Amino acid sequence: MTIQVFGHTTSTFCLVLFHILKELGLSYEVVQLNSTEEIKSPEYLATKHPFGKIPSLNDDGFQIYETRAIARYLINKYQGTKTSTVLIPSDVQKAALVEQFISVEASYFTQPLSKLIVQLVFKKRHGKEPDLKIVYETREELNKTLDVYEKLLEGKDYLTGEFSLADLLHIPYTFYAINIAGESELWDKRPNVSRWWKNISERECWKNIVTEYKLA
Amino acid sequence: MTIQVFGHTTSTFCLVLFHILKELGLSYEVVQLNSTEEIKSPEYLATKHPFGKIPSLNDDGFQIYETRAIARYLINKYQGTKTSTVLIPSDVQKAALVEQFISVEASYFTQPLSKLIVQLVFKKRHGKEPDLKIVYETREELNKTLDVYEKLLEGKDYLTGEFSLADLLHIPYTFYAINIAGESELWDKRPNVSRWWKNISERECWKNIVTEYKLA
Repeated sequence: MTIQVFGHTTSTFCLVLFHILKELGLSYEVVQLNSTEEIKSPEYLATKHPFGKIPSLNDDGFQIYETRAIARYLINKYQGTKTSTVLIPSDVQKAALVEQFISVEASYFTQPLSKLIVQLVFKKRHGKEPDLKIVYETREELNKTLDVYEKLLEGKDYLTGEFSLADLLHIPYTFYAINIAGESELWDKRPNVSRWWKNISERECWKNIVTEYKLA
Repeated sequence: MTIQVFGHTTSTFCLVLFHILKELGLSYEVVQLNSTEEIKSPEYLATKHPFGKIPSLNDDGFQIYETRAIARYLINKYQGTKTSTVLIPSDVQKAALVEQFISVEASYFTQPLSKLIVQLVFKKRHGKEPDLKIVYETREELNKTLDVYEKLLEGKDYLTGEFSLADLLHIPYTFYAINIAGESELWDKRPNVSRWWKNISERECWKNIVTEYKLA
């Protein structure tokens, strides 16, 4: 049975799952949900995601929601079975550092950046004006986070040294920030952060997603 | 070598780590950081937590930060070695559901509740007035989350059926909400949520923490 992803092909969190699925060499089917009504429907809430969010995933009858949980599930179950990509290493300390940077990504990177992208990308798509106070505040927060990243990435190609799920989770929001929101300066002005973005965005699997889902 | 936790014995995230360490039967030493200056000092930023947060943990020379990452590390390394408590099951699907509820906890529960606790507990301790707009908004958000929990906990003692890290992560903030912030109604008015809180807050290890660190 095919793995089904319930969501939308422009959703950053769905893009994270597509990328993981491709890195692990798995085929999947997207069940495209085009309206808020579908995601908030009693049927969706009861069977796919009780908090009314995307994505949700079905793997041969096993239903699971929340992106980072789905990510770990797919990796636990399938890593090493189809491709040699390692997204979470088996070594306990190396795995701990990947988890450390996943928590950093969720707390200090994606939290402000997701709010910035809502203002500069999604509001615009719906013909609304961005809230400039939120834009300035989240950009400032992101500047502080990327200052720390610049130090942490000194002499390193990836956050933990080797490519992992922690790096991958940064890709879709950063892609939107640089290519659609016009925020590339945040990355460009920091040599280590900029080099890291080049390393992670040039993954073959990600480039295929950009083409397949016409992101650029 | 003893496990060292750098932090503060009133910090909810440090309390999570103490609880995990006790459940796993591990001894530890708390390096108490009493001021913001210590947590933002160049030495702390360079060696303990580059984002200037607590806790950070040292296990025989291995330094790691971010609570949920430290939690998974301790469980991966020590679960089953000293006690029989299972915080993350080895079964792939069961582990996935624990991770699902950890993500739920972080996104829909702790995010609003931590803001509410800052207003109602920590501001008060520093002699400041709470921002009532934030109080109403976060309480409203929490009401919505706990409405979903009420359904999810129907017929279940714990979020995934059995006690796990997902339940444990809810304890310190809920304890503060009920016992210090005076927000017990949020739990009391929901029979399943209320029963669940009784189950998780009566863990022997947690009761020892409440006494040891004089939380109540």
